[in-house]
Amino acid sequence: MRAVFQQELKEVQSRLVELARGAQKIVTKASGAFLNSDVSLADEALALADSNEEKALDLDELVIRILATQSPVARDLRILVSALRMSASLERMGSLASHIAAIARYRFPGSAIPESLRPTFEEMAAIDQELASKAVSLLENTDLDIAREIQARDEAVDLLHRKVFDVVLASDWSENAMYTVDVTLASRYFERFADHVVDISAKVSFLQTGEW
Amino acid sequence: MRAVFQQELKEVQSRLVELARGAQKIVTKASGAFLNSDVSLADEALALADSNEEKALDLDELVIRILATQSPVARDLRILVSALRMSASLERMGSLASHIAAIARYRFPGSAIPESLRPTFEEMAAIDQELASKAVSLLENTDLDIAREIQARDEAVDLLHRKVFDVVLASDWSENAMYTVDVTLASRYFERFADHVVDISAKVSFLQTGEW
Repeated sequence: MRAVFQQELKEVQSRLVELARGAQKIVTKASGAFLNSDVSLADEALALADSNEEKALDLDELVIRILATQSPVARDLRILVSALRMSASLERMGSLASHIAAIARYRFPGSAIPESLRPTFEEMAAIDQELASKAVSLLENTDLDIAREIQARDEAVDLLHRKVFDVVLASDWSENAMYTVDVTLASRYFERFADHVVDISAKVSFLQTGEW
Repeated sequence: MRAVFQQELKEVQSRLVELARGAQKIVTKASGAFLNSDVSLADEALALADSNEEKALDLDELVIRILATQSPVARDLRILVSALRMSASLERMGSLASHIAAIARYRFPGSAIPESLRPTFEEMAAIDQELASKAVSLLENTDLDIAREIQARDEAVDLLHRKVFDVVLASDWSENAMYTVDVTLASRYFERFADHVVDISAKVSFLQTGEW
């Protein structure tokens, strides 16, 4: 029974890694769509987000089945409850990235980014992609050094998010309301994406150390 | 053991109702703060959101303890897993409403709403408060008529959310970028708040009927 259970936990882990890889692909394509007004990348991001949502639901069903058949307690139970939450975060990351892709799609053939904010968004998109890649590594290896790196990179995203507002609210901002709306929402989505990676790393750290 | 378990499920239900009442209070105070530039209401909303977050964490711990001691299966297990998710939604609703309060606080003594959008936001805030109240009733009585009403009211919020963008992106929009940012984010928070009520009602319906 214990061997079966260990096998099942491995399966949960590998599905979480797969979901994280999905979120990484979605944010990569969504960033490309957003930065380069690329509609076909946007469509790929939207389709991948749907498929990631289905995979998250499948994982949830697997976890519920394991809870029912194995009646785990203590740390094993916490691992499975955390898996449900991480699955929700990974699904949400795909969904947030797909909203970024949708903005690009909506503004095509125009760009959703004014030139003055391009470097800021390039950096934000790069860090979100890096964070998604770190989420994959963390779920594969549960290395707490990665958890600490994630914390630091999230702070960089928060600074860039605030910088977007500083630029938009400065007296020399002369772009139209459409740009203002697009960059406000896109920045919010990038920032929330990073928050979810932090949530995931907090859960992995908790399972390793018992401390939040 | 079964009697103890039924007692525990009752406790979970009453804590979910309490969290929903908390979310209702937070969105009521946040709406007042946002519509009337009332900083003391904003502070109350922010403090309540912190306390709701703690209550949600306490509920999660209770659910994990019940899972560990009762090893529920089938519908009982699904009720508890759903409770974890509803707890997350109710906590998030408080957090989203507190972001609305924070916008009001940030713009004080000015208003975050231009007059042209005041009626739209009044309606949106009223429906979100109504939705929170319906979430309380639904969690108390698991009445599926309420679940259907929630669906319809959420559609009304989506229309108002789109209306905000229509107004902001119209050629006669002449407000400054600060207003554009504020109303874009506030509208998004109101809309996400309503989405979470729909998520909760879908879970209650599923537990009652076995169908999504």
